[in-house]
Amino acid sequence: MTKRVIIAGITGSMGQKCADLIESLTDFELAGVIAPDLTADCPAAKKLSSETKLFIDLKDLTLAADIWLDFTTPQAVFNNTKFALEHHYRPIIGTSGLTETQISKLQEIAAKEQMGGIIVPNFGLSAVLLMKFVQMAAQYFPDAEVIEMHHEDKLDAPSGTAAATAQLIAKSRLEKPLAPAAHVAARGADYEGVKVHSVRLPGYVAHEEVLFGGPGEALTIRQDSFDRASFMQGVKVALEHVSELSELVVGLDKIL
Amino acid sequence: MTKRVIIAGITGSMGQKCADLIESLTDFELAGVIAPDLTADCPAAKKLSSETKLFIDLKDLTLAADIWLDFTTPQAVFNNTKFALEHHYRPIIGTSGLTETQISKLQEIAAKEQMGGIIVPNFGLSAVLLMKFVQMAAQYFPDAEVIEMHHEDKLDAPSGTAAATAQLIAKSRLEKPLAPAAHVAARGADYEGVKVHSVRLPGYVAHEEVLFGGPGEALTIRQDSFDRASFMQGVKVALEHVSELSELVVGLDKIL
Amino acid sequence: MTKRVIIAGITGSMGQKCADLIESLTDFELAGVIAPDLTADCPAAKKLSSETKLFIDLKDLTLAADIWLDFTTPQAVFNNTKFALEHHYRPIIGTSGLTETQISKLQEIAAKEQMGGIIVPNFGLSAVLLMKFVQMAAQYFPDAEVIEMHHEDKLDAPSGTAAATAQLIAKSRLEKPLAPAAHVAARGADYEGVKVHSVRLPGYVAHEEVLFGGPGEALTIRQDSFDRASFMQGVKVALEHVSELSELVVGLDKIL
Amino acid sequence: MTKRVIIAGITGSMGQKCADLIESLTDFELAGVIAPDLTADCPAAKKLSSETKLFIDLKDLTLAADIWLDFTTPQAVFNNTKFALEHHYRPIIGTSGLTETQISKLQEIAAKEQMGGIIVPNFGLSAVLLMKFVQMAAQYFPDAEVIEMHHEDKLDAPSGTAAATAQLIAKSRLEKPLAPAAHVAARGADYEGVKVHSVRLPGYVAHEEVLFGGPGEALTIRQDSFDRASFMQGVKVALEHVSELSELVVGLDKIL
Repeated sequence: MTKRVIIAGITGSMGQKCADLIESLTDFELAGVIAPDLTADCPAAKKLSSETKLFIDLKDLTLAADIWLDFTTPQAVFNNTKFALEHHYRPIIGTSGLTETQISKLQEIAAKEQMGGIIVPNFGLSAVLLMKFVQMAAQYFPDAEVIEMHHEDKLDAPSGTAAATAQLIAKSRLEKPLAPAAHVAARGADYEGVKVHSVRLPGYVAHEEVLFGGPGEALTIRQDSFDRASFMQGVKVALEHVSELSELVVGLDKIL
Repeated sequence: MTKRVIIAGITGSMGQKCADLIESLTDFELAGVIAPDLTADCPAAKKLSSETKLFIDLKDLTLAADIWLDFTTPQAVFNNTKFALEHHYRPIIGTSGLTETQISKLQEIAAKEQMGGIIVPNFGLSAVLLMKFVQMAAQYFPDAEVIEMHHEDKLDAPSGTAAATAQLIAKSRLEKPLAPAAHVAARGADYEGVKVHSVRLPGYVAHEEVLFGGPGEALTIRQDSFDRASFMQGVKVALEHVSELSELVVGLDKIL
Repeated sequence: MTKRVIIAGITGSMGQKCADLIESLTDFELAGVIAPDLTADCPAAKKLSSETKLFIDLKDLTLAADIWLDFTTPQAVFNNTKFALEHHYRPIIGTSGLTETQISKLQEIAAKEQMGGIIVPNFGLSAVLLMKFVQMAAQYFPDAEVIEMHHEDKLDAPSGTAAATAQLIAKSRLEKPLAPAAHVAARGADYEGVKVHSVRLPGYVAHEEVLFGGPGEALTIRQDSFDRASFMQGVKVALEHVSELSELVVGLDKIL
Repeated sequence: MTKRVIIAGITGSMGQKCADLIESLTDFELAGVIAPDLTADCPAAKKLSSETKLFIDLKDLTLAADIWLDFTTPQAVFNNTKFALEHHYRPIIGTSGLTETQISKLQEIAAKEQMGGIIVPNFGLSAVLLMKFVQMAAQYFPDAEVIEMHHEDKLDAPSGTAAATAQLIAKSRLEKPLAPAAHVAARGADYEGVKVHSVRLPGYVAHEEVLFGGPGEALTIRQDSFDRASFMQGVKVALEHVSELSELVVGLDKIL
């Protein structure tokens, strides 16, 4: 049975890519789209099928649909998700900016409405799988280090993803690492004994590598993001599996 | 509670390393050892505790123990495993050479005796985790290639492990790969569309790398085996988890 | 002293990028540009300084200049290079399509005119340096293999560059490799004992890796081309060094 | 013509490996060996040919020979090298511990005696070639970072080699790097803008990787030392080329 999708944020770049994606899938159709700056003759609207309803305000939106795909703004995302849950559209939230408190509140609403959904900080499948694998590997290899590589313009170091990876590894370990603690510059940033190294070089895009070592062997997991095109694969996975969820979860790894 | 272990093949190199391992663990003790060429004053025997019983023939072996650790010979392994199952020692079989038919027969005996155990073709944790991860990754990345690298003396190509990895990937895919089939020399060996490339160079030991690619991103999983020391970590994992098994399984990944 | 440059093929994408490059350099100025489809109000022309002269035909071109930068077509490149040499503009030829015979003829003209210049099949500095380094390394490591990785749409395998790399390694070796010859599928394509492996995966762009192995050690050289932006660095190096050449050479490595 | 070699430090592990090496080469023969603890029936002496003369003290050593191969002690190496130069044995010095002042003094003696020779801090060819290549690459890629990986027992970080590599890169650059200076933990140790990251993991041996990045491309050079066996290739290169030297130089790269 074809699932009907609403895209919030259709005028943005991700919104439009999502519309193209849904167009290409046989099991999904685009029931409606919404954006405050949407007009019938803007480029985002013109390529939509005539079956797709257009909205500019939540209060006017009334439509039979299964899934709410959100790529809007930090300002709009909380109200949108609440609206989706209360109208029984399963939310897939790609918009960033929800606070811990907001997420808890939304999870309560989801529980009350008996609705599942997913908040996705990162749609890159290679990054999400890396996260999943390193947690498993850390159970057998307590010694691990993270190297992340980005273009020279990235200002923060380490990347949020690399810091999160190191923390997950630290939490997943069952034994203490063999490598002694060390606090000299060359050993990088320390997250409970998991070292993180940040490389900043022109030409690089966004790459993360996790090195595990044990007596006589090594295991390395690496992911490379070359292009945002990669996010669409993750959106597709979310569309296919969001209906299996019975609560509002955070992280694409929850449905992999 | 301390688990009591019997080592079959104590005079071999792996048998002795296993004895050292058990010595170093607080939850296990070496109840007995067996080898046809075992004598009380051979090096393997001399470093054992006086609590450990020595045997040279299965028919004399009678002992209270929990686990049977086997590093013997292709000729001995079937009878040893049968003996272990029938005497309710949970088998951990590191010896190679069991045929498919023999394994089926042993699994029947295990079922009849209501005994679990494990046959382990590869104790290297990094190799076993790689196998596990690539099966998961292949569900999201149908395009994959395997590169294995070994020292120049390795005669067969591809390695058995690399061929098995490619077959697992092919079986785990949910979609057809994007890369077109190609049958020119540079594209390597083909396992249902998964290409395998074998590198043979002096200096290298034993390494396997699996490359996954999808639109705009890549995921790479690599394992390096530098030294057989790595196998002991796998033996330890098997010792710790064999008691949780309710049947005779093949592959360390079954308990990871 | 400022060097004056003529760009042939200004209406093409590389021609325009070269114009931007010269604009950004203090030691070079754009004396003139030529293209058969050039008009004063086309985008390529409109952003040029008013000092730059426009031409659509070689026969009208008369101008004081030092360097001829050519990104035209296989049909035009021979006559253009001949014209440049005879008018004492040092040619930097980025256009492909010159035959061996044509190159020899142009080298004769260059010798007669006592002019240096350079024909550049690949402006990517990382690729050119890799070529240079592998020839040096092969003198000490006769065992080497090449792995090239490209997007899934690349039809030929191995890439021309990888085949050329393997041939250069074979030619540079001083000793026979230790690894025995092998002719099974997994060992890839063979160039006088140097194996070449081609990986084709979505997400990948253009990458080449050369693995050297010797007793107890390994040396690996890898280059990644993510974007044609990289070629501009090579054009800059050519502009800076073409004046030092006393003959017409092939390959950017000749001036590195 | 066969070159005659004296090995100083024959009773050490490197001394013995060098004796085996010379035995295997057709163009070299072992004229004599020296070590303070050498006796005619020690293992090191027993496998030598009867043509090889044994010495325990420099003052007794008088012998026609071409090359002095030194793997002794920091205490002995200065006097040994001086002796070699004054007796016109070309020195190949693998012993560490010479101070800058001592090296200068030895270079003066070499000049006076019109003798060439070589002091070699690292015989690993992959490491020496890496050093050579990174100096060339840095001229075209001012942005570079060094990652060195060693076993968990290595106490200092970064390794001396990695620090030296970073300094050579900094000195070889012709332009300022694009990546901004950054002084947070994750960015590692800084050598004039070249970042060095040290990884310490069990299983790893000794590895160094240099990453260069430029607009749209990357170049990576990596060396792996798995085993001291690799040093013998470097000794062979030194034996073959030391006769071409007209002064006392430092570093195997001087003859590559």
